[in-house]
Amino acid sequence: MDNIEQFRRYRERMNKRILSTKNLNIKRFFALDTRAYEKGALDVKTKEILGLVASTVLRCNDCITYHIIRCVEEGISDQEFFEAINVALIVGGSITIPHVRRAVEILDECRRKQKQKQRTVRKKKEKARPWSRSSLQ
Amino acid sequence: MDNIEQFRRYRERMNKRILSTKNLNIKRFFALDTRAYEKGALDVKTKEILGLVASTVLRCNDCITYHIIRCVEEGISDQEFFEAINVALIVGGSITIPHVRRAVEILDECRRKQKQKQRTVRKKKEKARPWSRSSLQ
Amino acid sequence: MDNIEQFRRYRERMNKRILSTKNLNIKRFFALDTRAYEKGALDVKTKEILGLVASTVLRCNDCITYHIIRCVEEGISDQEFFEAINVALIVGGSITIPHVRRAVEILDECRRKQKQKQRTVRKKKEKARPWSRSSLQ
Amino acid sequence: MDNIEQFRRYRERMNKRILSTKNLNIKRFFALDTRAYEKGALDVKTKEILGLVASTVLRCNDCITYHIIRCVEEGISDQEFFEAINVALIVGGSITIPHVRRAVEILDECRRKQKQKQRTVRKKKEKARPWSRSSLQ
Amino acid sequence: MDNIEQFRRYRERMNKRILSTKNLNIKRFFALDTRAYEKGALDVKTKEILGLVASTVLRCNDCITYHIIRCVEEGISDQEFFEAINVALIVGGSITIPHVRRAVEILDECRRKQKQKQRTVRKKKEKARPWSRSSLQ
Amino acid sequence: MDNIEQFRRYRERMNKRILSTKNLNIKRFFALDTRAYEKGALDVKTKEILGLVASTVLRCNDCITYHIIRCVEEGISDQEFFEAINVALIVGGSITIPHVRRAVEILDECRRKQKQKQRTVRKKKEKARPWSRSSLQ
Repeated sequence: MDNIEQFRRYRERMNKRILSTKNLNIKRFFALDTRAYEKGALDVKTKEILGLVASTVLRCNDCITYHIIRCVEEGISDQEFFEAINVALIVGGSITIPHVRRAVEILDECRRKQKQKQRTVRKKKEKARPWSRSSLQ
Repeated sequence: MDNIEQFRRYRERMNKRILSTKNLNIKRFFALDTRAYEKGALDVKTKEILGLVASTVLRCNDCITYHIIRCVEEGISDQEFFEAINVALIVGGSITIPHVRRAVEILDECRRKQKQKQRTVRKKKEKARPWSRSSLQ
Repeated sequence: MDNIEQFRRYRERMNKRILSTKNLNIKRFFALDTRAYEKGALDVKTKEILGLVASTVLRCNDCITYHIIRCVEEGISDQEFFEAINVALIVGGSITIPHVRRAVEILDECRRKQKQKQRTVRKKKEKARPWSRSSLQ
Repeated sequence: MDNIEQFRRYRERMNKRILSTKNLNIKRFFALDTRAYEKGALDVKTKEILGLVASTVLRCNDCITYHIIRCVEEGISDQEFFEAINVALIVGGSITIPHVRRAVEILDECRRKQKQKQRTVRKKKEKARPWSRSSLQ
Repeated sequence: MDNIEQFRRYRERMNKRILSTKNLNIKRFFALDTRAYEKGALDVKTKEILGLVASTVLRCNDCITYHIIRCVEEGISDQEFFEAINVALIVGGSITIPHVRRAVEILDECRRKQKQKQRTVRKKKEKARPWSRSSLQ
Repeated sequence: MDNIEQFRRYRERMNKRILSTKNLNIKRFFALDTRAYEKGALDVKTKEILGLVASTVLRCNDCITYHIIRCVEEGISDQEFFEAINVALIVGGSITIPHVRRAVEILDECRRKQKQKQRTVRKKKEKARPWSRSSLQ
């Protein structure tokens, strides 16, 4: 199981557990946390990049992983990613380097997953269209 | 002298002093710091907002002051400002509140300065055009 | 104007300003922050001491000032205060010492204010009861 | 081997190793660390909760694990635990969430161990008392 | 009153106040703090430079001020100072820059005081030796 | 595979990956990071000890591992190591203890590797010199 999948399952399981408690304030905080990244004057991608940079300077691997997954879903380019990481690296210094390594590792995993998905989608389409161009050649 | 002016003078004086040393590496780091916020795949305003959020979660008043001045120069709206600050507040928690207070104080100072400047510019224009519409009425 | 009064006014003024914005999420966070210290399974004094220790290890003077004011209102003894500060000092190390100095300075200001208030209350009572024991002697 | 057992063994082995060095000051610091949580004006449970909140806002998983084990030994209730964690979450922000997940996981492990122990104790008692109520029914 | 003198007096007054409490553990920690910088396998100057770098990456102005005063007393050269500050700047990133400014300001104050003192000492010697070379010429 | 080897390979692989990006500023920062520890007015060993203490108070296991490997290569003694760690422990408090445990574990691994290497070197020498003293006896 890769880093992303492992993180996703643990996060989902524990969030469910935490939200099962009677403590209303914790639930409210989790709700506010979600709302902070919703579209407003700033778009969702920008807000997720803000979350990524904040997580990197504060050096939290799980938070970095989460925001990279979200940034990729929102269509961040590699160049945008590395510029954001560079801001975090300059602000936070070399102590963030181990987290920069982790961030790049997670980005690469996300890109591989994206490609895999695109290939699966393409194959499905081809199967659904036996008269498609490639099969005619 | 207001907070912004006081910060600006101290910063300028001390940066000059630091860059007068023979330590080449410190100078190079200051240059890299400047470059991190230059236009690339991400525009300058977005990068300054990244700097603002990073400074707020790391709780550094001088860095917050600097990035707000720059954000205002790059045309940040009040709504964008408060959404960015909210991300920082959620990520960083109530321990950032004293810095949020400071950030809002500095934003208000910047807005006052902007208005003052606009009035001065308008007055100068009016003086320079004695035939202007308002003087004809 | 003493440290406490200066802090109180600035805090009140800026909180009012921040809560005047249209950003609903920031207001909600401020509400959650208040609720965190309300009576529950843990009593209010214990929660304020938790806030004090958290503020000290995270090294935020304004937060320390706020929680000491509240701890004193909730009846913290000097011995309890110093034991809590000692936990913070051991967990957070000598880097917290400047904040420990500040904390003790604020505690001493609070104690002086308490005594002043008690004297004022006593004098008022004596004036209101011209037949009081002390005036009869 | 569960998280708690793994932590306990590593901690014990390395503490022994560290205390075997000739550096007297390190040994003295370890002694002071122990003393900070002993009964005084504040009781032991309160002090361990202080340690838990301080560890959570400073985001140290091993320290969180240690103080939860101690809090459970001192009889913390689930409601008290979640109120303390909520204070840490509000003070420290969403960056502490991965540590809150860990804290809840450790609490759950501790509760399972408690139940297991109670069952073992009950069974032993029943064996020792063949005339016990349940065996008569 | 300059930064150094102001810091010195406040520090001395508050340390005396803190050490007047009955909390034995706090006193012991202050003693351990002093011992950490005493001569051992590493000399005092190296240890004070360690303290300076630790204080800079942790961003505590009072701690920075204290360790610079001590580094200067132990004969640190300007080149050594800037190399140590550069390590802190690289490790801690641009968020430390406001503290680097402060550090350089304090170093400059220390150097001015050193020169003043040397001049005073020289003058005293000259007065004490009316037959000195310079007065003969 | 031991901790050191695992760290070394991951670090090498990811650094190569990061330096393969087109982001020039990140590459420049990595270069500056290397330069910060080169010989100057302070020698290399002292600078690596500075890096170790900074990494410990900032609580980054990978950075601690890296600087211990380098400190051992530069000939740090056990006594020097524990004095430096003690400064970090006093400055950073008990929250650094899990990282102190890790640091000592890594030091012990390094010492084992050193001894292994020395034995291998000695054996090779003996093989290369069949007329050596020990074989003559």
